[in-house]
Amino acid sequence: MSKNDEVVLLDFWASPFAMRVKIVLAEKGIEFEAREEDIMGGQSELLLNSNPIHKKVPVLLHYGKPICESAIIVSYIDEVWPSPALLPTCYYARAQARFWADFIDKKLFDGGCGIWRNNGDALELGKKEFIEILQVLEGALGEKDFFGGDNFGFVDTIAIPHASWFYAYEQFGGFKVEDVCPKLSAWIKRCLERDSVTKSLPDPSKVYEFLCMFRKMNGLD
Amino acid sequence: MSKNDEVVLLDFWASPFAMRVKIVLAEKGIEFEAREEDIMGGQSELLLNSNPIHKKVPVLLHYGKPICESAIIVSYIDEVWPSPALLPTCYYARAQARFWADFIDKKLFDGGCGIWRNNGDALELGKKEFIEILQVLEGALGEKDFFGGDNFGFVDTIAIPHASWFYAYEQFGGFKVEDVCPKLSAWIKRCLERDSVTKSLPDPSKVYEFLCMFRKMNGLD
Repeated sequence: MSKNDEVVLLDFWASPFAMRVKIVLAEKGIEFEAREEDIMGGQSELLLNSNPIHKKVPVLLHYGKPICESAIIVSYIDEVWPSPALLPTCYYARAQARFWADFIDKKLFDGGCGIWRNNGDALELGKKEFIEILQVLEGALGEKDFFGGDNFGFVDTIAIPHASWFYAYEQFGGFKVEDVCPKLSAWIKRCLERDSVTKSLPDPSKVYEFLCMFRKMNGLD
Repeated sequence: MSKNDEVVLLDFWASPFAMRVKIVLAEKGIEFEAREEDIMGGQSELLLNSNPIHKKVPVLLHYGKPICESAIIVSYIDEVWPSPALLPTCYYARAQARFWADFIDKKLFDGGCGIWRNNGDALELGKKEFIEILQVLEGALGEKDFFGGDNFGFVDTIAIPHASWFYAYEQFGGFKVEDVCPKLSAWIKRCLERDSVTKSLPDPSKVYEFLCMFRKMNGLD
């Protein structure tokens, strides 16, 4: 089996969940092959066979064995290739990191949908709720450089891909993340100084165009 | 600090999520104090201060430091008190265990709500969807004694508390779990042979009465 067959990512360029996996692979210096899935035209047989329960990207294939669900993939990679570690070694700090990763998983993507999938009053409500979610995260970040302290870690990996969708949310919602959450905005800039992040995140204007297309298809624009 | 102050659980007797924590503490032989929360009449100051984000049980206080979200608490306990281990040591098996725990978290409780919070066609649809979820779990269990193989482990701890609500679902939905998922039904009986499980789960008829009260309060009966 060649190097490229060892680690394969079933990917979609705009998926913040797939971006998490690309960031952690880059942080660990692991070569991988990304196979783009056509989420509009139908998933590949490989995707359907690898993730029969959820039928979604990302899936990591490690020597052909599938691992599904992005936060679980990030944990798996952090265990198999332990250096540099993303999760802290202190058990309590690990539990705190998992809590915030879980909060982000439960709130941030769906919160964004409240903006870009709506118009009028529903959009205004979605914006209000999304900003409240960001403000909770801003509180969790506090005065630290990264969510875990001085170093880029687990929660940063889970959270930062969503920032590639923020420009679109700002356009649809008529607000600026920087105005409502200046510390979180500074954290985004700090993350974007890392090669692992810049090479894994798409151009935010491409995400905006992608969501504009979705809105047109659904009669929202 | 006395032994009892080391580990405190903010609890509610009918919460399947709190039951998980009681099972894992019993599996590890850890003494703890359970403090019952009045979820109908208002949460305690301690709960609100310990879990300001979700304001829900269970919360584990370990030497006064709070850990929230039941699956995260179970992982924390498994790391702090590693014997007997709930998560397997093999990284791939750990990822699989986390996948099924995550599936259960996303589907099983909400699936049950589709039955007991509804009537008529909505209840019938809820029942159909709930049975489909159980059948996915029956497939994941396969011919094994427990989800991880021969021994009671992480996924069993996450899943088995929900079985204490199944009698109520059967009464409201007019079906028998044993008829639709015989292997899962045998797995429930196997889990109920363990002291850690029997002493952590309430009498299913009490859960049924509790949900009947909820249904009356919401004009469903």
